[in-house]
Amino acid sequence: MAFIKTPTKGMRDILPKEVELREYIISKITNIYSLYGFKKIETPCVEHIENIANKEGGENEKLIFKILKRGEKLNLATAEDVSDLVDSGLRYDLTVPLSRYYANNANELDSPFKALQIGNVWRADRPQKGRFRQFVQCDIDILGEKSNLAETELIAATANLLNEVGLKNYKIIINDRRILKAFVLAAGFQEEDCSSIFISLDKMDKIGLDGVKEELLNNEFNEEQVNKYLSLYQNNSQNIFDFCQQIDSSFLSEDIINNLMEIMSISKNVNAVNIEFAPTLVRGMGYYTGPIFEIIVDGYKGSVGGGGRYDEMIGKYSNLSVPACGFSIGFERLIDILIEQNYVVPNENKKYAFIIDSNISIEEKSKYLEQAKSLRKQGHIVNVLIKAKNTKHQIDVLTENKYKITLNGKEIN
Amino acid sequence: MAFIKTPTKGMRDILPKEVELREYIISKITNIYSLYGFKKIETPCVEHIENIANKEGGENEKLIFKILKRGEKLNLATAEDVSDLVDSGLRYDLTVPLSRYYANNANELDSPFKALQIGNVWRADRPQKGRFRQFVQCDIDILGEKSNLAETELIAATANLLNEVGLKNYKIIINDRRILKAFVLAAGFQEEDCSSIFISLDKMDKIGLDGVKEELLNNEFNEEQVNKYLSLYQNNSQNIFDFCQQIDSSFLSEDIINNLMEIMSISKNVNAVNIEFAPTLVRGMGYYTGPIFEIIVDGYKGSVGGGGRYDEMIGKYSNLSVPACGFSIGFERLIDILIEQNYVVPNENKKYAFIIDSNISIEEKSKYLEQAKSLRKQGHIVNVLIKAKNTKHQIDVLTENKYKITLNGKEIN
Repeated sequence: MAFIKTPTKGMRDILPKEVELREYIISKITNIYSLYGFKKIETPCVEHIENIANKEGGENEKLIFKILKRGEKLNLATAEDVSDLVDSGLRYDLTVPLSRYYANNANELDSPFKALQIGNVWRADRPQKGRFRQFVQCDIDILGEKSNLAETELIAATANLLNEVGLKNYKIIINDRRILKAFVLAAGFQEEDCSSIFISLDKMDKIGLDGVKEELLNNEFNEEQVNKYLSLYQNNSQNIFDFCQQIDSSFLSEDIINNLMEIMSISKNVNAVNIEFAPTLVRGMGYYTGPIFEIIVDGYKGSVGGGGRYDEMIGKYSNLSVPACGFSIGFERLIDILIEQNYVVPNENKKYAFIIDSNISIEEKSKYLEQAKSLRKQGHIVNVLIKAKNTKHQIDVLTENKYKITLNGKEIN
Repeated sequence: MAFIKTPTKGMRDILPKEVELREYIISKITNIYSLYGFKKIETPCVEHIENIANKEGGENEKLIFKILKRGEKLNLATAEDVSDLVDSGLRYDLTVPLSRYYANNANELDSPFKALQIGNVWRADRPQKGRFRQFVQCDIDILGEKSNLAETELIAATANLLNEVGLKNYKIIINDRRILKAFVLAAGFQEEDCSSIFISLDKMDKIGLDGVKEELLNNEFNEEQVNKYLSLYQNNSQNIFDFCQQIDSSFLSEDIINNLMEIMSISKNVNAVNIEFAPTLVRGMGYYTGPIFEIIVDGYKGSVGGGGRYDEMIGKYSNLSVPACGFSIGFERLIDILIEQNYVVPNENKKYAFIIDSNISIEEKSKYLEQAKSLRKQGHIVNVLIKAKNTKHQIDVLTENKYKITLNGKEIN
């Protein structure tokens, strides 16, 4: 059988220089989030098919890499359907595994539990520029904290990280699922219309008010209600209180408004976060139950991360009713932006290259290796190399990479 | 469908304390290997089925997690065999992906290329204590270096790492595939008998000379040849030269012996490595072509890592003929041993817990959050927490975890 040297479709090899940047950013993430009390956890990349293909994951479920049963459990002859052949799949996000992990290990975890996860997830999406089928997600979650201390700490930690890596011109936008729902009801729609209406509202940025209207009418919503609904979103006030004043207070409790105002106030005034109320922010996942937020960067389309409160998810894995709130950084997106902004990983190690002839005596070789050992002990990088046929090229490349070079012990540069 | 809270069979959730140790050791590995010029690379966890199920991987291939084709490519009705259903699988080691990576990216890589890989691999082995179906491998490889500088640098870097993490009572044992083969031929066997004979010889430690003899006879090798072969291994000399003197020099070139002696000499005398010649060391993988080595630890069965030269592997992915040599640390084994030895991750961060009442004013809360912010800026860990119903328990747990605690601003301990 022929070997194939390219990666599998939609996946990629990462070259050393990008790995260095990625690992540097990962170490920043780990260090900064640890200051807020987040602890790193690890879950298997492979999940039960029951946990990932159950309609909770929406569109992502169509994109699961499914794993074949093994041994006697695999019976091709009697299989009627794909589901007879598979028992597991690669995780498509880190939220499902976290919920399972918490249900499985709650007794051994802090309460509230502040989890940091950085790991690969897989989605068999149509490959396109800058989007791969294996990519890193980076999530922080607070499980067991019902107060908005969860939201404010998540937002503070995330903003601290973004500042620390030097991301420029970003802001955090915020909304609340319960406000979104109240507006749907206040316009006269039914609760079960929410998810369809949210999908259209979410496109406001791209297709504008008229576009959203057209889509809602195409979806056969009542024109009068649609007009009423969209008129509420013509008010571009970023003041939560003013915005919510538009609907009757019977649809929306004051607590929800005050809660969101407090999150914004602490984020702005204590943690100096550039945060804005965004009434049309929806966030895709159906499991959100309260405040939702997103990072956007001037000059870049789409978000660089987001999250929100999902108080009913953990309960699905156990009888525990556990409030939960999370914030996910779009790691791959962040790396792309940093590369575009010519981000340079600080590196203080000195680099030495010892070039030696292949035919020198073991005594002489030992001498150079002793020197290498002693420099390494001092924390310097030493690359010991046999002299190449094209010595000039070898030296040029090393010089370009800022090595201090010796050839059989003699300094070259 | 019911959610399942345990991990998939043979896999595991890793708790924060172990993650902390694993990450600390990974950072040590990364730092120390970088001093020797190794650069980290990343390959996808998913590989072409053609690359991993081709008989090169020996027993490991039976253990592959195979991934189902997707979309139109998946046709259950016409599938006659499992191979019609799958297009990829999870990697079972890091050597196959490295070979593919090098063939795919050689033009953009250093020459020689010194690669460091730390990543998960998957094998659907029978689950047993301490062995999991997803586990981390940690490999360093030098591609493009035909001289024994590759072996000596790999061994030096590995020993440096093991010393640095404080592993006690280990040694590195070494042999050469070509010596093993010469002894097979000198006893009168055929070259094609090698792999079967090596499997038996490899068990010398466990079943002794008599056990190996019985197994070889059971495998229908000629008794006279078996006796001759095993008589050579009765010489327990750890002197390579003496050991190799037993067979006619026509079977074994002097270069091979000198090469191995030089590797040992440099490792011992320059790099202070505890290294020993081990004539019955085999190493499982069929792809080794020269020196092979293994880490063993007093008091622990099995190896804690190993490697060797595999000069013909890369050529299978391209027309490049590239000499290669690698050393793999048994990461999971190392972690198990360190946990058993009560390894403590050094941690210099001070830890503060700010416990606050849930009903304090936003002004008061802001004050504590300001203090938290300022301590974090100084590099301290601050965990801000809402006062639990069982405050005593909350404080006890935090005290146990060495937090300095304040309750609504008042110092508690």
